Amino acid sequence: MTWTLARRTGRMNPSAIRELLKLTEQPGVLSLAGGLPSPDSFPVDAVREATARVLRDTPREALQYAASEGYGPLRDWVAARLAADGIGVEPGQVLITTGSQQGLDLVGKLLIDAGSAVAVETPTYLGALQAFAPCEPEFTALAADDEGPRPEALAGAAGARFAYLLPNFQNPTGRLMSDARRDALVAAAQAVGLPLVEDNPYGELWFDAPPPAPLAARWPEGTIYLGSFSKVLAPGLRLGYVVAPPALSPKLLQAKQAADLHSPGLNQRIVHEVVRNGLLDRHVPTVRARYAAQRDAMAAALRAHLPTTTEWQAPRGGMFFWLRLPPGLDATALLPRAVAAGVAYVPGAPFYAGEPDGRTLRLSFVTLTPAQLETAVAALGRVVHEALAEQPPLRRAA
Amino acid sequence: MTWTLARRTGRMNPSAIRELLKLTEQPGVLSLAGGLPSPDSFPVDAVREATARVLRDTPREALQYAASEGYGPLRDWVAARLAADGIGVEPGQVLITTGSQQGLDLVGKLLIDAGSAVAVETPTYLGALQAFAPCEPEFTALAADDEGPRPEALAGAAGARFAYLLPNFQNPTGRLMSDARRDALVAAAQAVGLPLVEDNPYGELWFDAPPPAPLAARWPEGTIYLGSFSKVLAPGLRLGYVVAPPALSPKLLQAKQAADLHSPGLNQRIVHEVVRNGLLDRHVPTVRARYAAQRDAMAAALRAHLPTTTEWQAPRGGMFFWLRLPPGLDATALLPRAVAAGVAYVPGAPFYAGEPDGRTLRLSFVTLTPAQLETAVAALGRVVHEALAEQPPLRRAA
Repeated sequence: MTWTLARRTGRMNPSAIRELLKLTEQPGVLSLAGGLPSPDSFPVDAVREATARVLRDTPREALQYAASEGYGPLRDWVAARLAADGIGVEPGQVLITTGSQQGLDLVGKLLIDAGSAVAVETPTYLGALQAFAPCEPEFTALAADDEGPRPEALAGAAGARFAYLLPNFQNPTGRLMSDARRDALVAAAQAVGLPLVEDNPYGELWFDAPPPAPLAARWPEGTIYLGSFSKVLAPGLRLGYVVAPPALSPKLLQAKQAADLHSPGLNQRIVHEVVRNGLLDRHVPTVRARYAAQRDAMAAALRAHLPTTTEWQAPRGGMFFWLRLPPGLDATALLPRAVAAGVAYVPGAPFYAGEPDGRTLRLSFVTLTPAQLETAVAALGRVVHEALAEQPPLRRAA
Repeated sequence: MTWTLARRTGRMNPSAIRELLKLTEQPGVLSLAGGLPSPDSFPVDAVREATARVLRDTPREALQYAASEGYGPLRDWVAARLAADGIGVEPGQVLITTGSQQGLDLVGKLLIDAGSAVAVETPTYLGALQAFAPCEPEFTALAADDEGPRPEALAGAAGARFAYLLPNFQNPTGRLMSDARRDALVAAAQAVGLPLVEDNPYGELWFDAPPPAPLAARWPEGTIYLGSFSKVLAPGLRLGYVVAPPALSPKLLQAKQAADLHSPGLNQRIVHEVVRNGLLDRHVPTVRARYAAQRDAMAAALRAHLPTTTEWQAPRGGMFFWLRLPPGLDATALLPRAVAAGVAYVPGAPFYAGEPDGRTLRLSFVTLTPAQLETAVAALGRVVHEALAEQPPLRRAA
């Protein structure tokens, strides 16, 4: 029996990260690879109580088919929460999705034709590349610095269907766009009529100060905004949301309906029950404090164990450090040695839509304890020092 | 601000049913329109207990990111359950989806290119037309009789990417494919190398005798099989599954990962906890008995209140009656009068990929009580009799 596959399947590839994670799931390996929030950060008691209430008070509604737009009170809550960030939206613009990954899938369906240009950061979130790929775009990699993509690069992407941007503690680099950079990017996008898709899974996870206002607050009619409950509550509930300009809402809703009818009503009611009395205002600060301590532990370990020719900056929020190994080293080639030494990470190459920088790698600091982070980074340091020592003298001197 | 929409959005349309349902959500209207299982059929206590156990014993695992394939023990359970239906599958072939609607979305992504032919029944499940539409297929409507599509029509669809078939108590017609028809369809498909996509949400809801063996049991290497927990447990959990030949599994998994990373782990663990000790074997017979009584009530009401020139057959399972109004009447035109008279239904036209039969309509018998069904069908009967009486004499005599 021969099956004819759709052409788009040629653009689907096994996730390099996924394959790597299998490699790292060995006993005795401390993994800095995954993007998993610490389970210690899940508000388990609140979820238990909320779930019990939902299944006591509204079991029939929670278990029945529901509206594709999402659970009304949860949409209201999201709209009110976003208003506090300066994004003035009507609840009718809020579409509840099965994780923000589904939001990316729906945005792709809505805006990308085969061969359309889509501008992405250098590097960018791998899951977005995977979500958009089935629509067969041509990716344009926007040149970037420590503050994100450069405004002139955005201006050069005129004609793309949209630019996909992660202003807050970006996955994978952890970088934060400054207020001035946000203004400049929005001005550049407005000048050429380039729509923005703003993905904000990590915005609540700031350690020092809240991030500047979102792009959507600066240019609501030109921006689609994606949010998620995965990082502030728990990812296993699979709930996120998309906020789109009103003109796009009907088609976005039709795409959602075709994709899975609606996100699970039980989960939406649980989340609403958890958040409606302000749990996030009490809970998220505890997550921030936990992650900030882990960030500090990893920064200290990196200073102690990595060669000074390793480039990195401590992130001001989120979940990731982005490292650039000393010249001559390749993060993908080094991974098997690191795993043998008891530590795993994700090489940076898969995060590039264009030419990858083989020296880069991503380290998550939120899954392990500070003590484990010290042990893991020490092992990584030994591997890097050993690899450096093996380089030809000329190369080592470079 | 002007957004350029992808071409495929031209194929997305507001669900006619969805729009109609809004019309019918008026106080005092008895709705036979929705495809909603009766909430009285939800095993609420079992879900409560299962949920409490999951959140007591494995809260961190249930709330964490999880494998895109689905929760291992649930995949094992599905494989074992299917084996009882004669479908020999490895658990590795089972992909857990966010409702079987997502299974249709993934199958479309896997197999449909723009312009590909896709063969569907006449009429067919509207949600499948909507799921496939974003991939821009050309639908081929297979001529059908009371047993489903005719084998010679299937042979005539050679070259299509697949034929989408619902052998058990089809939505919308309620029809059941006989054992002989299944054999003939599989033989016709094999003869021309036409893959099959078998959708089986209603197979467990038989009233008189279990349906014949699935198509996938007759031709495993040529059939993708979709199942669902929506009709035997509860739709609000949004869990279904796709079983594909092993050669297709990797690309299907990549499509799933890109679409929503994974279906909610909490929900998967709840469902596994509910089913693992055999609850379905105790629960589903109660659903069958409930729906059979409702089927009987609707059949009696149709016999009592509809003109004898109305064509219908009592379904042997599932959730729907399919009616063909007397000559000269149009189900879409009649709907506002029916709603005014206190009863709603879904006109048949949207279920046709090809030329619709305007006389047809779908009635659900599972949401209302037998007494409500009698009242609703009596109202429908009055409306039909009135409309007939208004026809010109020549027409009425026809």
